[in-house]
Amino acid sequence: MSKDFRVHILGCSAAIPTSERHTTAQLLNYHNKYFLLDCAEGTQMQLRRLRLPMMKINHIFISHMHGDHYLGLPGLMFSYHLLGRTKTLNIYAPDGLKEIIELQFRISDLKTSYPIKYHLISQGNQLLYEDTNISVEAIEMHHRLKTYGFLFREKPALRNMRKDAIEKYNIPVEEISRLKAGGDFVTPDGKLITNDNITIDPPPIRKYAFCSDTGYTEQYIDQIKNADLLYHEATFLHDKVDIARQKTHCTTIDAANIAQKAGVKQLMLGHYSARYDDMKLFEEEAKTVFHNTILAEEGLCIDIG
Amino acid sequence: MSKDFRVHILGCSAAIPTSERHTTAQLLNYHNKYFLLDCAEGTQMQLRRLRLPMMKINHIFISHMHGDHYLGLPGLMFSYHLLGRTKTLNIYAPDGLKEIIELQFRISDLKTSYPIKYHLISQGNQLLYEDTNISVEAIEMHHRLKTYGFLFREKPALRNMRKDAIEKYNIPVEEISRLKAGGDFVTPDGKLITNDNITIDPPPIRKYAFCSDTGYTEQYIDQIKNADLLYHEATFLHDKVDIARQKTHCTTIDAANIAQKAGVKQLMLGHYSARYDDMKLFEEEAKTVFHNTILAEEGLCIDIG
Repeated sequence: MSKDFRVHILGCSAAIPTSERHTTAQLLNYHNKYFLLDCAEGTQMQLRRLRLPMMKINHIFISHMHGDHYLGLPGLMFSYHLLGRTKTLNIYAPDGLKEIIELQFRISDLKTSYPIKYHLISQGNQLLYEDTNISVEAIEMHHRLKTYGFLFREKPALRNMRKDAIEKYNIPVEEISRLKAGGDFVTPDGKLITNDNITIDPPPIRKYAFCSDTGYTEQYIDQIKNADLLYHEATFLHDKVDIARQKTHCTTIDAANIAQKAGVKQLMLGHYSARYDDMKLFEEEAKTVFHNTILAEEGLCIDIG
Repeated sequence: MSKDFRVHILGCSAAIPTSERHTTAQLLNYHNKYFLLDCAEGTQMQLRRLRLPMMKINHIFISHMHGDHYLGLPGLMFSYHLLGRTKTLNIYAPDGLKEIIELQFRISDLKTSYPIKYHLISQGNQLLYEDTNISVEAIEMHHRLKTYGFLFREKPALRNMRKDAIEKYNIPVEEISRLKAGGDFVTPDGKLITNDNITIDPPPIRKYAFCSDTGYTEQYIDQIKNADLLYHEATFLHDKVDIARQKTHCTTIDAANIAQKAGVKQLMLGHYSARYDDMKLFEEEAKTVFHNTILAEEGLCIDIG
């Protein structure tokens, strides 16, 4: 059974939405579990436009408390209530978000139809979520406010049985799960067959790193090492590197340098300043440092690994 | 010089935005003064899409603290800051909005580039705004939360001089403004010419009433009497009158009854529940009671009077 692992881009502009461009939000689908990364103004409408299953989102991660990353969340949460949601909504965010949401519910005189569980993000490497297949960790960014990226990391799968070995050693079915977990096999006549003779490696684990917003820093390179896909903010073309430094954002070349140093397989740029109309130059600049670069754009869906 | 008086519909859906339908916001243009009425999620993008002058809005009126009427305001205000606005922004709203905005600014560590003046709406008939040409009053709605509609009322214009009278009585130019204000004229030989012989009535004053959200009530009929245009919420078709009563909203027939009793010239329906796709029935039902009914729709611009 294939394990879907893909990300949908709902918005990838920086700071100010324009008539056609939304600010940051992404929907991550891991085998029909849905995780929302940031939730800019208009996210609930983007989910509907792209026919994504808004009601199936049970985990929402907010990187930081700048409006272009969270302002769509109250509306989404009000809509969940109006639509009669009953499942618990988990929200992972830095300090402040809970207070903003609760104040709005209080002033609207609303008691939601569903439970809300707030998880405070307070440091890098913090394990935010895990189930049997995947985990999510916070990545500490370098920004004006406390800001966290997110690392989605698959857990190692079980090893795969070799069909020829099953036949050759006549392995009974009740042994399979133990062998898939790495155990050796002993034949009825007492011969030890080590695991490497009867199984093959599972597919490599896959990783997705979401890094936005941040100024240039190498502090999280170890953590995102070898990611299959790195989404990294590149607010400016590199001729604006001084503005980028001043505003603690990155340029195309910054993002490409991070991708290169972390040895990721693919880089996706995003969080473009509203001053730019044509993103082609973003791709061209980044590719001078890191060839496997693509551009985030609204509606894009990309498979990870 | 003609005095423009028109309203642009930015969103007219109730409660939950859909992929194509925004919740409540309207831009009123009175002779190039711009007033925003409610500010649902996505309003700043709607202003850009419709090429309306977002930066010229100096007065924003919020009817009540349900999310579908105010959730776009924080984003608009963040954007004003990022765009370097310096002019004072006046916000008229019931209790609670100021607290929500100030909390978000505090948590985002933002000191706006422009001054904000909050005006608390606390009762019906309250005069919220006036200048030499127009005034805005609160209208007390009947809703689950404290809710206010808005009445835009032109001030009486100066009377118009009769050209034939100017010639006949040889009226000197320095007398004109006094006569336009209603004064009588005395000829050089002492004869009194009363004002009605030298001026004609100015154009009648025009009124626009915005009434949303509300359950059926006749409490504001006197206040909106003879309005040139009444925007009135009609969340449901009339077969859902029981739900309307329970949720303190109106049906098509309710809105039409108000229009008819108040003797307004034209009724515009809006605030349609997301359950409806085709609004044609809304118009048909309302017209059985009040013929001059039109439907609000996004992007519609309508002249008042």
